[in-house]
Amino acid sequence: MSDQRAQAVVALGGGHGLHASLSALRLLVDDLTVDDLTAVVTVADNGGSSGRLRGEFQVLPPGDLRMALAALCGDDAWGVTWSQVLQHRFEGDGEMRGHVIGNLLIVGLWEQLGDPVEALDWVGRLLGAKGRVLPMALCPMDITATVRGLQDDPSALTTVRGQVEVATTEGLIDTISLVPEDPPVSAEALTALAGADWVVLGPGSWFTSVIPHLMVPALRRALETTDARLVVVLNLAEQEGETPGFAPADHLAVLAEHAPDLRVHTVLADRTWVAGHEQDLADTVEALGARLVVDDVGADDGSPHHDPALLAAAYARIFAGAAEQVPLGRPRA
Amino acid sequence: MSDQRAQAVVALGGGHGLHASLSALRLLVDDLTVDDLTAVVTVADNGGSSGRLRGEFQVLPPGDLRMALAALCGDDAWGVTWSQVLQHRFEGDGEMRGHVIGNLLIVGLWEQLGDPVEALDWVGRLLGAKGRVLPMALCPMDITATVRGLQDDPSALTTVRGQVEVATTEGLIDTISLVPEDPPVSAEALTALAGADWVVLGPGSWFTSVIPHLMVPALRRALETTDARLVVVLNLAEQEGETPGFAPADHLAVLAEHAPDLRVHTVLADRTWVAGHEQDLADTVEALGARLVVDDVGADDGSPHHDPALLAAAYARIFAGAAEQVPLGRPRA
Repeated sequence: MSDQRAQAVVALGGGHGLHASLSALRLLVDDLTVDDLTAVVTVADNGGSSGRLRGEFQVLPPGDLRMALAALCGDDAWGVTWSQVLQHRFEGDGEMRGHVIGNLLIVGLWEQLGDPVEALDWVGRLLGAKGRVLPMALCPMDITATVRGLQDDPSALTTVRGQVEVATTEGLIDTISLVPEDPPVSAEALTALAGADWVVLGPGSWFTSVIPHLMVPALRRALETTDARLVVVLNLAEQEGETPGFAPADHLAVLAEHAPDLRVHTVLADRTWVAGHEQDLADTVEALGARLVVDDVGADDGSPHHDPALLAAAYARIFAGAAEQVPLGRPRA
Repeated sequence: MSDQRAQAVVALGGGHGLHASLSALRLLVDDLTVDDLTAVVTVADNGGSSGRLRGEFQVLPPGDLRMALAALCGDDAWGVTWSQVLQHRFEGDGEMRGHVIGNLLIVGLWEQLGDPVEALDWVGRLLGAKGRVLPMALCPMDITATVRGLQDDPSALTTVRGQVEVATTEGLIDTISLVPEDPPVSAEALTALAGADWVVLGPGSWFTSVIPHLMVPALRRALETTDARLVVVLNLAEQEGETPGFAPADHLAVLAEHAPDLRVHTVLADRTWVAGHEQDLADTVEALGARLVVDDVGADDGSPHHDPALLAAAYARIFAGAAEQVPLGRPRA
């Protein structure tokens, strides 16, 4: 397959993982590989500046949305400056300590305009963002998790509630769910998913930023029915709290447990991280009916973060149909 | 005199008075009467959101600067929306209560960029502001006033410190001064004053928004040496706290007391407010060596606020040399 037409892409996630993915996809907007980019962002944060604003104003937690908007700012002086300002966090010892400018701007716009989607579009236009940022749901969400290992009986399940609490649990997460279970979703998010050529899920905090989208019934149905091809981007490391001891294939296994009917087209994994896990991962990917692309997408500073330019190149090859499946799986029938 | 060339204008003041003046001058930018508009804004506020931010971060109080930027936003959907967002004040009962979005944005930019003038220019560009907004001084200021009537001896003077305290004193303000007495002033403000065709001073809270500029030595010298013609715009009413019982001419008298060497070119007064005071005002204006222009510039809602369109028309006539001096003074020699 080779597809020279510019692509419509929807990226699902939250936090730093989505920031990395959008930082890469933005580069593909710049070079016209992508002409329509939409982020659909988790709105379950209950900590920090977002948690305080959510508690004070009964609004969506703005932090992940703000971070996505910052990732979509351009590389010129305008984009760099506003991205930094949007992300600026107040220090000191006073009442503003810990609040982030972009969060306050977004909440102010929500109060002023009423409609959360319209307000995010205004911020995007203000900053010259290279894509649209939408919330995963139109009401604030809570993540709950069933967790093993918090009781004397190691197989006993405990329910943990709250994104912060789930992300930092000392137990092993079994499943997550959302409260409310069936939140309202914006028509804009559903339209974007229905019309996309590609949907990118991950990287990011697996249980609190990636899987939540699959637990929103309207989004899961949209993902199951769209003609868009789904790319799952694996993390570059296991994550303390959420995925300790998780091998690459384990990430796909929990994804499949939470959304058994999800059709995955491509799994993108980093060459360094999957070293030693290739066969296991290839088997799991094949069982999903997907293709595995292994590429060099990690930053060269030793951190478990994606390098935007390398990730962009990997996306471009996948979107063009030029990324070769690695010959690691069993011989195909 | 008729001058068809577009004019460079500097407006001095603060608060709602400067907002009114800039809302009028912006209309003259739109119709190309003015091609260079700069606001030089008081930075002495110590109350409300500005006072809290000033106390927490040791920055200039942003409120008057934010209000000036809002006044310079355009009339289209973009300008109207961002002006409203900039002015949006958080309500509720939480820690953000009373804070204004634009104040937080400005303080965040100051922290991010360091240079207060550069940061205000960035906000102006962001919003598409129709002029530049500069602080009166580069450090936070305090206004102090000597006030009569707060002691048993009605002629005894009491010193009151702080813009809020001065603006709401129950005594009668005699003089004001600033702390520090000789603050640093931006090169941009001095350059704007030196290069202006017209400088507009007032309307506004007379002792806390209008006269403070004259108490900054570097600004006063710039006003005394510029070739720009100075227009003093009188208020539409006396003001509780600052100017109770003040007739129009009394405003000019205290201005002259604070800056005896100031050369005033034109005094603009509202026809309704000066009714009954014409001769007294004309005498005072003549003694200043200035010309008096009486025009209809008040809002028709009965409030003591200038109507932007009427004030713009009055400015345009003055700048074009087409505003006739009212024939109220003694016959000129």
